Amino acid sequence: MPQMMKAAIFVEPGRIVLDEKKVPDPGPLDALVRITTTTICGTDVHILKGEYPVAKGLTIGHEPVGIIEKLGSAVEGFEEGQRVIAGAITPSGISNACLCGCHSQDGAGTKHGFKPLGGWRFGNTIDGAQAEYVLVPDAMANLAPIPDGLEDEQVLMCPDIMSTGFSGAESGAVKIGDTVAVFAQGPIGLCATAGARLMGATTIIGVDTVPARMEIARAMGADHVVDFKAVDPVEEIMRLTDGRGVDVAIEALGTQPTFEAALRVLRPGGTLSSLGVYSGDLTLPLAPFCAGLGDHTIRTTLCPGGKERMRRLMEVIASGRIDTRPLVTHRYALDDIESAYDLFSHQRDGVLKIAIQP
Amino acid sequence: MPQMMKAAIFVEPGRIVLDEKKVPDPGPLDALVRITTTTICGTDVHILKGEYPVAKGLTIGHEPVGIIEKLGSAVEGFEEGQRVIAGAITPSGISNACLCGCHSQDGAGTKHGFKPLGGWRFGNTIDGAQAEYVLVPDAMANLAPIPDGLEDEQVLMCPDIMSTGFSGAESGAVKIGDTVAVFAQGPIGLCATAGARLMGATTIIGVDTVPARMEIARAMGADHVVDFKAVDPVEEIMRLTDGRGVDVAIEALGTQPTFEAALRVLRPGGTLSSLGVYSGDLTLPLAPFCAGLGDHTIRTTLCPGGKERMRRLMEVIASGRIDTRPLVTHRYALDDIESAYDLFSHQRDGVLKIAIQP
Amino acid sequence: MPQMMKAAIFVEPGRIVLDEKKVPDPGPLDALVRITTTTICGTDVHILKGEYPVAKGLTIGHEPVGIIEKLGSAVEGFEEGQRVIAGAITPSGISNACLCGCHSQDGAGTKHGFKPLGGWRFGNTIDGAQAEYVLVPDAMANLAPIPDGLEDEQVLMCPDIMSTGFSGAESGAVKIGDTVAVFAQGPIGLCATAGARLMGATTIIGVDTVPARMEIARAMGADHVVDFKAVDPVEEIMRLTDGRGVDVAIEALGTQPTFEAALRVLRPGGTLSSLGVYSGDLTLPLAPFCAGLGDHTIRTTLCPGGKERMRRLMEVIASGRIDTRPLVTHRYALDDIESAYDLFSHQRDGVLKIAIQP
Amino acid sequence: MPQMMKAAIFVEPGRIVLDEKKVPDPGPLDALVRITTTTICGTDVHILKGEYPVAKGLTIGHEPVGIIEKLGSAVEGFEEGQRVIAGAITPSGISNACLCGCHSQDGAGTKHGFKPLGGWRFGNTIDGAQAEYVLVPDAMANLAPIPDGLEDEQVLMCPDIMSTGFSGAESGAVKIGDTVAVFAQGPIGLCATAGARLMGATTIIGVDTVPARMEIARAMGADHVVDFKAVDPVEEIMRLTDGRGVDVAIEALGTQPTFEAALRVLRPGGTLSSLGVYSGDLTLPLAPFCAGLGDHTIRTTLCPGGKERMRRLMEVIASGRIDTRPLVTHRYALDDIESAYDLFSHQRDGVLKIAIQP
Repeated sequence: MPQMMKAAIFVEPGRIVLDEKKVPDPGPLDALVRITTTTICGTDVHILKGEYPVAKGLTIGHEPVGIIEKLGSAVEGFEEGQRVIAGAITPSGISNACLCGCHSQDGAGTKHGFKPLGGWRFGNTIDGAQAEYVLVPDAMANLAPIPDGLEDEQVLMCPDIMSTGFSGAESGAVKIGDTVAVFAQGPIGLCATAGARLMGATTIIGVDTVPARMEIARAMGADHVVDFKAVDPVEEIMRLTDGRGVDVAIEALGTQPTFEAALRVLRPGGTLSSLGVYSGDLTLPLAPFCAGLGDHTIRTTLCPGGKERMRRLMEVIASGRIDTRPLVTHRYALDDIESAYDLFSHQRDGVLKIAIQP
Repeated sequence: MPQMMKAAIFVEPGRIVLDEKKVPDPGPLDALVRITTTTICGTDVHILKGEYPVAKGLTIGHEPVGIIEKLGSAVEGFEEGQRVIAGAITPSGISNACLCGCHSQDGAGTKHGFKPLGGWRFGNTIDGAQAEYVLVPDAMANLAPIPDGLEDEQVLMCPDIMSTGFSGAESGAVKIGDTVAVFAQGPIGLCATAGARLMGATTIIGVDTVPARMEIARAMGADHVVDFKAVDPVEEIMRLTDGRGVDVAIEALGTQPTFEAALRVLRPGGTLSSLGVYSGDLTLPLAPFCAGLGDHTIRTTLCPGGKERMRRLMEVIASGRIDTRPLVTHRYALDDIESAYDLFSHQRDGVLKIAIQP
Repeated sequence: MPQMMKAAIFVEPGRIVLDEKKVPDPGPLDALVRITTTTICGTDVHILKGEYPVAKGLTIGHEPVGIIEKLGSAVEGFEEGQRVIAGAITPSGISNACLCGCHSQDGAGTKHGFKPLGGWRFGNTIDGAQAEYVLVPDAMANLAPIPDGLEDEQVLMCPDIMSTGFSGAESGAVKIGDTVAVFAQGPIGLCATAGARLMGATTIIGVDTVPARMEIARAMGADHVVDFKAVDPVEEIMRLTDGRGVDVAIEALGTQPTFEAALRVLRPGGTLSSLGVYSGDLTLPLAPFCAGLGDHTIRTTLCPGGKERMRRLMEVIASGRIDTRPLVTHRYALDDIESAYDLFSHQRDGVLKIAIQP
Repeated sequence: MPQMMKAAIFVEPGRIVLDEKKVPDPGPLDALVRITTTTICGTDVHILKGEYPVAKGLTIGHEPVGIIEKLGSAVEGFEEGQRVIAGAITPSGISNACLCGCHSQDGAGTKHGFKPLGGWRFGNTIDGAQAEYVLVPDAMANLAPIPDGLEDEQVLMCPDIMSTGFSGAESGAVKIGDTVAVFAQGPIGLCATAGARLMGATTIIGVDTVPARMEIARAMGADHVVDFKAVDPVEEIMRLTDGRGVDVAIEALGTQPTFEAALRVLRPGGTLSSLGVYSGDLTLPLAPFCAGLGDHTIRTTLCPGGKERMRRLMEVIASGRIDTRPLVTHRYALDDIESAYDLFSHQRDGVLKIAIQP
């Protein structure tokens, strides 16, 4: 094992650069994982642009696929050399938040044990996965062995995209026979579409405008795809549902228009499941909100993490129910990650997700 | 039985008057109930002011306590002369909405079986309870016999105030050991306080400023009462919870400041249970909404109805767990209902609820 | 419309005969439906054998597909000539049981509003569907129009088999990534398999021994099929799950060995979802029951009914998610129903379900 | 700190003796707690009698109240000298079981992460609390500071009795207005009664025969107490509920007659919540089980643990909602614990719980 490694480091707003860093040494509960594949997330672009603040010098990235290089002294149940993933969210398991099932808001070490977004550590509060090595904290709660026969790119979406996307359907409590609309068919929206399909929705309507995404949407499970530039998506969804509206509306972009459209197509008693990261205050318009009397549920969800979640998502892949490889549209070496950021942040060339390989 | 009766009728915005109407004849599934006690709701004031539109000539009121005068030809299981109540919401039981448990959004007779607020019929889409007689539709689903030994005023809050207030705690899924804040301690907020207590919350914080309401709040179960004119309620609740915030925040007024304050005191992963009737668009401020990543739930609830709900609420009263009689601060004859509206709409004389007796 | 019709009538244990009956006249809330296709259920065989007592002279059958012939005077929202189905369970919607979501235990007309199995009326407490005509009670809650383009045999499983089978997965609260075992792959077990698949289970293990059923099991969604005569099913399931056991075990036969095996393969904290109709006391063996400390859930479910349920199931068919036509292995004219009973009750000729056409 | 301590040690069936042991040294994640008060549980008597096997030489007891003496090197967020409790169940937080909310079946270190009863370690798989000192494993997940002002005996029931008893009501999903029967009013049954009251049940029926327990039952929240030696409890409960039966039946003894009676008084669609530790196979009688068609739920629950659970239970005490001190009927020095076992195992002198103080 070398002593130095390459890592994509946040320098200042507008600049993420590949630089050298010391390979870290695992504490008692950590695991050092050699990254074999990772990827760039929309959140990383928020960081790049300075819209989401992180410490200067931090390694970015929260989607690790790799091999256990070294286990902390107190870590049991794993072996060096195992192929593993870890979730974007790495809960401690021991905080008050975790102990009541709210792992993503993990407040380990805080006074009350709850901390907003506290479970998100990689590339946020600790060094992340866009590097040759990453330290996985609370390794026993977070390392998930990759089932035999699955390649890196097959499980690359599990740490974040698939976990988040599926949670959109899960938080919407999609039931057999439901009608579901998914606003935006980027990687997370596509996985929300797949999740709704997997949970038994029978009419799934994806909304986007990029032809390639609209096409993949059908492959991922959408029964209808609405081009919001060609038609008014609210009107079109009401037409497709014959005026009934949807049981569950999933927001997967993070904007007022999509949030509001999700509410406007929701039937009374329905659930708006929100995945997007918003950048400003949101407005709940009075009429579709039924003045507060519509028995509506609005739920927001941060990507579920932990090894059990990862295990289940990899089971989905291993079972052949869903294949997320079509989401990987580009491949770059870690050495070229700055170019990958350039491509991804400008959404050029029909990019969905980029596999980064050290 | 007389052929004509007195009824409080909506004439035009600003005018609800007592006038004569024909006593209606029950259809096959209806029951004619002779009102012995009813009351005026905040919603009726919205109607009075023209803020919530109803048909001219409609009898107002949705909180009936009375005696079965005559049963429709197809109604079985009840007897004339029985003392009964019916909920403010009178679900049909047979619509698609009802069949999936969404009784308040009952769309009986509509194409898809869902209709926003469709379960609310009394004093909204059919003649209401501020009269000598009222027709209860779908009587078999809605008539609830009053247990022996309970007086009219003991059950007068069941049809709406108590059902709505309790639902604030129920939709918040209050659990043993929860900390709950209830914004506004009017009749519904007071019952939300009582509901949170009844479900096992161990720290209940009521917010209001009217001394009489603040006092009753303690009697209904509040551990702390915050005067929002004396202190900043968000700061005070954070202080009372030692910075932790609340597990469940119940909004019981219907304004942006209370809605927003409810969100601001909510811990990550918590539930904002909204009961208020809003009169304008709402804003979800970015930071307390955690930019959409706080695993929050926002639920709105319209008063649950139906005879099973009424039965359970009357059981609460009969068991002595809660006494809602202190909410009845005034009593008027039906003949004087116009004065009662005047008092109630101006919230004079410390009024909470007015018992109206024909 | 003729005045007399043919109907399969229970005469005495061992004898169900085709006889003539008067075509009934619908009461105000009923609908008269002309049967176009129906089928025989295992429960009907229990009735035939005298194991489940019904009144002599009762028309048997609870799986109607047909055309509305005549609507009761108070029935709105439907039209004569519409193609419809009704569920095996026909809830009133108005009892206390229905009003709290427990439609199958509908106690309309009883003192407390709950009655064991009370929602099951067709061929149990009122005349059933193995006839030229059937009266559908509480028609507004129970008639479900067949979507355009679906043929009778495509929706024939919806009233009972599919509703029951799916409920096995639903009551088991199957989640994405679950491992599920389904004991017995008769028609209901096959639909439980399909339901588990539809809800996101990623390892589904069907248990049976009849080759044809084992083959269809794979088509309906099983990842593994265990022949309980070739291997010990508990051992084999533990082997297939690498010693982990299953998250949800579905019992779809109604015997002690299958019930017990379901418990034996269940992981701690798992759910045993029981669909079978048992004919004797059951034993919960101490060790797999963890002496009562395994955080287990055992749930029994009676077929969900009502028009909203039927609508959703037909949506599943219309969406192409599942095709239940392979379950129809035989076709008989109503005139030959006695032969159909003979074939079905002896489970000859690989029979799964028989379509009966008047 | 002395190097040796006294501890109640299992020697062989029939013999638990007070002996000397080395004071253990905390590992990195442990905390050494000096016991100030502990108690004896019915489970300990099972161990004493050899009915539940544990290793010879093991220190018994799983209900620690004490003071942090020494923290493991990796433990953060606590201070030596803090007064704390830990639950009878001490989940790791990091196993697959824990990560999906099934903390009591914690399988940390096992292949799949689930282990029956795995969360129960004190006095079962590791040394317990009937000693001068106890090592709390996974201290960060399990140490719960005692709120100021609460004495040892006020929180002594939290680690097991109250957590288990309340879980009987919680697993029964008791709702406002429910009718609940609790079979046996020993310490756990009494807390189940209190839990049902705390969650909003309005008719609570306790069953026992010991006069002192029947009296405390009323103080803990029972509306009716049935003496099963004076009357048939099933008949009496059906009489008290006017033939309706109960919504939730809680079994808190662990015998066939109480389990069966719980089923017999359950309404269709109701929940049997089982807390008892059974010592033989159980029988589910056919008729009250509705032959498997009653939409029943049977749930077993092992005492919930972890610091968040303990925090909430102590909140219940601190709020004054419930006082469990009346359950402490006797007090013994640790030196006299053999006599305490003698008294407790023979249930002499009206004993409910014995406070043991080193």
